[in-house]
Amino acid sequence: MKVIADICVVPIGVGVSLGSYIAVCEKILVKSGLKTHLHGYGTNVEGEWDQVMQAIKECHQALHDMGVPRISSSIRLGSRTDKDQTIEDKIRSVEEKL
Amino acid sequence: MKVIADICVVPIGVGVSLGSYIAVCEKILVKSGLKTHLHGYGTNVEGEWDQVMQAIKECHQALHDMGVPRISSSIRLGSRTDKDQTIEDKIRSVEEKL
Amino acid sequence: MKVIADICVVPIGVGVSLGSYIAVCEKILVKSGLKTHLHGYGTNVEGEWDQVMQAIKECHQALHDMGVPRISSSIRLGSRTDKDQTIEDKIRSVEEKL
Amino acid sequence: MKVIADICVVPIGVGVSLGSYIAVCEKILVKSGLKTHLHGYGTNVEGEWDQVMQAIKECHQALHDMGVPRISSSIRLGSRTDKDQTIEDKIRSVEEKL
Repeated sequence: MKVIADICVVPIGVGVSLGSYIAVCEKILVKSGLKTHLHGYGTNVEGEWDQVMQAIKECHQALHDMGVPRISSSIRLGSRTDKDQTIEDKIRSVEEKL
Repeated sequence: MKVIADICVVPIGVGVSLGSYIAVCEKILVKSGLKTHLHGYGTNVEGEWDQVMQAIKECHQALHDMGVPRISSSIRLGSRTDKDQTIEDKIRSVEEKL
Repeated sequence: MKVIADICVVPIGVGVSLGSYIAVCEKILVKSGLKTHLHGYGTNVEGEWDQVMQAIKECHQALHDMGVPRISSSIRLGSRTDKDQTIEDKIRSVEEKL
Repeated sequence: MKVIADICVVPIGVGVSLGSYIAVCEKILVKSGLKTHLHGYGTNVEGEWDQVMQAIKECHQALHDMGVPRISSSIRLGSRTDKDQTIEDKIRSVEEKL
């Protein structure tokens, strides 16, 4: 099963500057070989369900290993059986109607 | 790694009455042996990370098998290393301060 | 327009114990006269769109006034025109199919 | 109070092809004068709290006016008092650490 996800990881208990923690997650997502797109409030991730979920787990684990005591992530998960759709297809399906 | 999650599964392309689909997910979550709490806009789930994620995957798969062509889920994932906390603990930590 | 919302407010930059901040939000939601239901990863809120949105804004403002430098909230918003539905109706529509 | 939001509107009861509905929302957000960035699973929106919230309400209302019977939106809302930050600043704070 393929999934397009949107992931926003919020480290708690390490102050207000979170960019370095998000960069660690971003590197994990990219290194996992998944297609990713960083935006202003999260990251789009496209790939096989298990791989995407494994990458999200590695993000939580890596941040805890760096000393982040608490994490609250907000995730959207989209799967469909009617057609194969990429992140770019989704954006295009909106933009061509603007 | 333990996780407390909140899961809201939205089946798309099967009309506006979604209760029977959500009930299928609820049964999967309960049958998985995870601690669950159904509320008005999702379900709290508590357990080991892999088990929780496996149950969410089974929800998507079961709905697709029932003929749901598209699903968009919204999920919150909380993990922490500073203490062991249950769903009840989280509610109590707010209620005792009201 | 009526809305059923689910609100999870995450204060950032004030350590890992968030119960007292969530309690402040809970009091604002209850005092606003909206129907609310606290669960393990947020709060269901039911009411008129503008009132619900005003209450969410007051939550952010109150926490900033208490010294919280950064807040990231995750919110679900459901509106429908086909029927009038309450939080209890939504839970019942699932439970009667279990 | 300024807010950076991320908005994902899910129309329910109108089939699986949602691009034309999302395009209506996108036009509302752009016409509102807010800074926006469309991505593969939602739209970043930056502006004054009340204006952002008004635009989200108009999205729900416009879709209901088009005949969408039910909508479930997933929204992230970030506000901070420690510094003024734009969507571009948030992306840069991650990218410069990659």
